[in-house]
Amino acid sequence: MTMNVRGYAALAVKADLVPHNFVRRDPRANDVVIEILYSGVCHSDIHNAYNDWGGANFPMVPGHEIIGRVSQVGGDVTRFKVGDHVGVGCMVDSCQHCSPCEQGLEQYCVEGSTLTYNDVDRHDKMPTFGGYSETIVVSDKFVVKVPDGLDLKSSAPLLCAGITTWSPLRHWKVGKGSKVAVVGLGGLGHMALKLAKALGAEVTLFSRSPGKEQDARRLGADHIVLSTQDDQMAAAKDQFDLIIDTVPYVHDLKPYVSTLALNGTLVLVGYLGDLDPVLSSVPLVLGRRSVAGSVIGGIAETQEMLDFCGEHGITADVEMINIQDINDAWKRMLKSDVKYRFVIDIASLKA
Amino acid sequence: MTMNVRGYAALAVKADLVPHNFVRRDPRANDVVIEILYSGVCHSDIHNAYNDWGGANFPMVPGHEIIGRVSQVGGDVTRFKVGDHVGVGCMVDSCQHCSPCEQGLEQYCVEGSTLTYNDVDRHDKMPTFGGYSETIVVSDKFVVKVPDGLDLKSSAPLLCAGITTWSPLRHWKVGKGSKVAVVGLGGLGHMALKLAKALGAEVTLFSRSPGKEQDARRLGADHIVLSTQDDQMAAAKDQFDLIIDTVPYVHDLKPYVSTLALNGTLVLVGYLGDLDPVLSSVPLVLGRRSVAGSVIGGIAETQEMLDFCGEHGITADVEMINIQDINDAWKRMLKSDVKYRFVIDIASLKA
Ligand SMILES: [Zn+2]
Ligand SMILES: [Zn+2]
Ligand SMILES: [Zn+2]
Ligand SMILES: [Zn+2]
Repeated sequence: MTMNVRGYAALAVKADLVPHNFVRRDPRANDVVIEILYSGVCHSDIHNAYNDWGGANFPMVPGHEIIGRVSQVGGDVTRFKVGDHVGVGCMVDSCQHCSPCEQGLEQYCVEGSTLTYNDVDRHDKMPTFGGYSETIVVSDKFVVKVPDGLDLKSSAPLLCAGITTWSPLRHWKVGKGSKVAVVGLGGLGHMALKLAKALGAEVTLFSRSPGKEQDARRLGADHIVLSTQDDQMAAAKDQFDLIIDTVPYVHDLKPYVSTLALNGTLVLVGYLGDLDPVLSSVPLVLGRRSVAGSVIGGIAETQEMLDFCGEHGITADVEMINIQDINDAWKRMLKSDVKYRFVIDIASLKA
Repeated sequence: MTMNVRGYAALAVKADLVPHNFVRRDPRANDVVIEILYSGVCHSDIHNAYNDWGGANFPMVPGHEIIGRVSQVGGDVTRFKVGDHVGVGCMVDSCQHCSPCEQGLEQYCVEGSTLTYNDVDRHDKMPTFGGYSETIVVSDKFVVKVPDGLDLKSSAPLLCAGITTWSPLRHWKVGKGSKVAVVGLGGLGHMALKLAKALGAEVTLFSRSPGKEQDARRLGADHIVLSTQDDQMAAAKDQFDLIIDTVPYVHDLKPYVSTLALNGTLVLVGYLGDLDPVLSSVPLVLGRRSVAGSVIGGIAETQEMLDFCGEHGITADVEMINIQDINDAWKRMLKSDVKYRFVIDIASLKA
């Protein structure tokens, strides 16, 4: 017993996405069936479809920034009802009994969480398919509520770009009096600026190119440091309690590490790979600085982040597209030509 | 107005230490004059005398693990009186008004703390000379009390090896329930085992050579992992809240990073230089792990550590030497042939 779903899929590595029909499970007792309204377009959609990280399975229906409307609920579901506006992020399940899961840190599940797409359901072993589609079926524990009043379209990127920057901001206890810097002004970076500012921090953007100043200030930056200018980097030394580094490719961390304050941490959220060129221990030892990493966030903190965004009226800056334009959108993303996130209007799928 | 002091000095880079007379300032109002009884021999004494870190000044009188008896106090000194047993570590002064100094973290003084030797006094610009000598004159704020009952000889290494491992254990909140690993069993490593164990942690030693098991257990290790054995390293994955890495030369951190638990930190305390080969961001991002550094400790936490050692009867394992044997002792240290710290009996200087 399954349901037929329309979507867009990559059928092979680096192939253009094409219309694709596939099946999803009928809802289990604890499942929520969601009519997808909007699906954000994340850099990792491209990484996965291009097999940059290995492990790509095809057909692949990407998308893990999902906003929709509940259309059906299983018999055991009490937290959601038909018509609710809900979100689904990067995970749709986890073991639910390991120590990280018990702490609400399902993203660090010892058994590995079940990813929203390019993964396999841990119960029926069916492949998982993401948000570039009209319907998704998700265990209720992995569904979050969208607060009333928050714009639905521009909330989609909160489910990945939002939580990926929110989680380290909270883990490293950013608040009033904190000095936070953000490296990179893309989907993640622009959310980091907004969230850090709303949390009360003094916020700096490191940028490699001039001309972003006005936009950065509008998004929440108090200061902009051009990382290509040695004098500006020197003036920024020993400043930041937390640097959120959103750059998705290999880059030299040394210039940023030296701008950390005593006890400061640089946290990588966008890059998986070698830290090349080598780091030096000297600024770490002599300033008790740390280099760390963080991946997305747990379900409880995703709900916390959405509620915070509801209170503060925070959503992403988005450019809406029809799903038929997804291949062009990916090409533009590869050139960082988007301010700051594409969101697919899933209504276009039915056109 | 100065006093003449006997000691041992290096007169040039990599030269043997030789008897050397030099002058120290007469005590200022806030100074304590200390008759040195014992002086520990630290790896950094060799690094400094060999100019491994640059900035070596000669003549150089090394030694920053100093235990002595107060022989005179300046007019404003109230915390010490003649006859008190006291200690002096790696620093003898700092700016006293920057943010780290105000937090009791003088080792991270923004202006740079004044080191016990191979530095220049920030008031009279006289060179500083260390503990391989009969007398030292130190500002009272940088003198700590040795608790009654603690063996004086074997307390000397607490002033550098002890505090260097204590400070990260405390900063990263090690206590009952913590899982701590120590890399390297030398002067720092053996103190890390003792202190972590006394703080209530479950303690593991990473060792490259078999045969250290019995000693490691006596010093506080609950487990020994041979880092040369892939199966033992694999079995140690995802375990440790804190790894104290005491290795003083370049080495691959990757095998140790993968043994960190979620939210775990590897802290470098013995090595200044490039982190070669390159680290990978993958275990950092996917486990919210950190690589950090830490240097010695503040004066307040040095006193806290000494008091803790007094309560728990903890001192270093030492091998006593006469100062005439210092050059041989350095040669043996370079071969790691000491269990686990040489301490100079300064009485030998007067023989
Ligand atoms: Zn994403
Ligand atoms: Zn789990
Ligand atoms: Zn030392
Ligand atoms: Zn200071």
